Amino acid sequence: MTQNTSINRQIVLAERPKGEPTKDTLKLVEAKVPTAGAGEMVLRTEYLSLDPYMRGRMSDAPSYAAPVEIDGVMVGGTVATVVTSNIEGFDVGDFVLSFSGWQDYAVSDGTGVTNLGKSPAHPSWALGIMGMPGFTAWAGLTKIGTPKAGETIVVAAATGPVGATVGQIGKILGCRVVGVAGGAEKCAYAVDELGFDACIDHKADDFAEQLAKASPDGIDVYFENVGGKVLDAVIPLLNPNARMPVCGLVSQYNATELPSGPDRMNWLMGQILRKKVKVQGFIIFDDFGHLYPEFAKEMGAWVETGKVKYREEMIDGLENAPEAFIGLLNGDNFGKRVIRVSEK
Amino acid sequence: MTQNTSINRQIVLAERPKGEPTKDTLKLVEAKVPTAGAGEMVLRTEYLSLDPYMRGRMSDAPSYAAPVEIDGVMVGGTVATVVTSNIEGFDVGDFVLSFSGWQDYAVSDGTGVTNLGKSPAHPSWALGIMGMPGFTAWAGLTKIGTPKAGETIVVAAATGPVGATVGQIGKILGCRVVGVAGGAEKCAYAVDELGFDACIDHKADDFAEQLAKASPDGIDVYFENVGGKVLDAVIPLLNPNARMPVCGLVSQYNATELPSGPDRMNWLMGQILRKKVKVQGFIIFDDFGHLYPEFAKEMGAWVETGKVKYREEMIDGLENAPEAFIGLLNGDNFGKRVIRVSEK
Repeated sequence: MTQNTSINRQIVLAERPKGEPTKDTLKLVEAKVPTAGAGEMVLRTEYLSLDPYMRGRMSDAPSYAAPVEIDGVMVGGTVATVVTSNIEGFDVGDFVLSFSGWQDYAVSDGTGVTNLGKSPAHPSWALGIMGMPGFTAWAGLTKIGTPKAGETIVVAAATGPVGATVGQIGKILGCRVVGVAGGAEKCAYAVDELGFDACIDHKADDFAEQLAKASPDGIDVYFENVGGKVLDAVIPLLNPNARMPVCGLVSQYNATELPSGPDRMNWLMGQILRKKVKVQGFIIFDDFGHLYPEFAKEMGAWVETGKVKYREEMIDGLENAPEAFIGLLNGDNFGKRVIRVSEK
Repeated sequence: MTQNTSINRQIVLAERPKGEPTKDTLKLVEAKVPTAGAGEMVLRTEYLSLDPYMRGRMSDAPSYAAPVEIDGVMVGGTVATVVTSNIEGFDVGDFVLSFSGWQDYAVSDGTGVTNLGKSPAHPSWALGIMGMPGFTAWAGLTKIGTPKAGETIVVAAATGPVGATVGQIGKILGCRVVGVAGGAEKCAYAVDELGFDACIDHKADDFAEQLAKASPDGIDVYFENVGGKVLDAVIPLLNPNARMPVCGLVSQYNATELPSGPDRMNWLMGQILRKKVKVQGFIIFDDFGHLYPEFAKEMGAWVETGKVKYREEMIDGLENAPEAFIGLLNGDNFGKRVIRVSEK
């Protein structure tokens, strides 16, 4: 069944995954299409963003945000259209950026909803380059990473919406940019299309050696979004006073237990001390929300003039979102993965 | 043998320690008293500072500073007097802050030497509250930790020259300050004399529980100088957007191998991400040297008016420095440990 006007398809959390999410983690249920009360509007989902942070919401481990409840609709950023509206400033047919979650319809009182107008050129881009991932790349790199021309930046998931943007901003700022990605095709894209100076395949046996070779002057900024073996290979290459913005640790999200020893926690602290490294975690809208207008202006101009390129991977059908999400955590995506929920 | 005018006693690195330094690590040798050439001066050591970072210089592991060579004089901050001088601005009898190392006499061309004048009120304080440890506390806390009134600061080695200063500055800034120290006597001193709100004995079986109880609103700034079990107890208590200046990891300096697993390195990164923590290593004069005048002015006023208290532990005799240093790494000191090298 596809999106229609009589049923609200919802994808809910059926059970908390142990390790990798499976086909039993999420399930599709049907609900009534909601109606709008006073001061409310009904939104129909056009596009659903898939992002690695959603794995965290499936767990009830302590985090910066509450977990999704069992049988609760999965959370997620969406681009929607207004179906009915009792709110001034939101008219039927308007595109909006909302947080409707994994469902066809949602009711909103307008809180946190941004009106994108009647006919935005690229509505789904509000979920990517012009939205959370692009903003994460921009703020993490420029406000925490503070790269200077001539410095070396390393970023993993180099063709993903965050990594690709980090790298391209790095090039605009005059840095050497070394990407890490999975497979030759993605690496070629990072270099040939995005302008990275080098991109290393993390599946290569000699990945660490290749990364070192591609970073002959060491690493000044490591934009951390994966952790694991990329972090292992980066640490020895960090220069004094290196900066490490931390926006994600995708390689760790499906881990069910800590890896075996030895315990390198204090060793990492020692590296941070000896190399005078700054490591800073951030959650984009919590920590940098006030800078969104500055980001939107600068990134809008870069995208407009082609200085920053953006690759989307569009998948049709809400019902395909669970499988697409499981693949995202494994790095199957090539570019920003978006679900087209509405009918084409 | 005590300091005299005919022999230059030197303590040199006899061998690189494996683990804790022993009586075989350092040895006392005798050399000629040096003479000053053109543009040089001879300095006689009055006071030698003992500081945990010296353990790092005994090792040839990669670090921010070169190791002491085998049979080389141990490095160290000193307060000295000018014996002969061929440098304008340095006259015989002047006290200076120098980096003469563990020896009676040194030749200097004046580089990095600060003239303290003919009769400073507390010459040895230039090695403590008014020097590297005080500056470390001030810059790490105020420039990286950036505490706001009402926030909670935790610092270990609470009666040491760094920890005691961090805590007292924290109180001046209107924070709740929780210290960690070894034993009841030190803890009582931190609370009763230094004005800490609480101080927990890290030797207590229920140390982590006590720390949690003393930090009912969580921890906003953890000034890291020890690592190990204090860090373990702090992490679960860190508030969102906590800051962690890292100036030392004394608990780790004698470690010969990594502790057994599980490996918590990526777990630590996950905590940094989820709690949006800033962890920043720093080496005081590398990173904040340009702020020394600001520090000296502010700290000078605080010390002058009694707002910041300072405790020294003076030990007589260069020959006693090795044992005193080994004890320092074990937390035997109560206050800033200084060797009085000159005759009383």
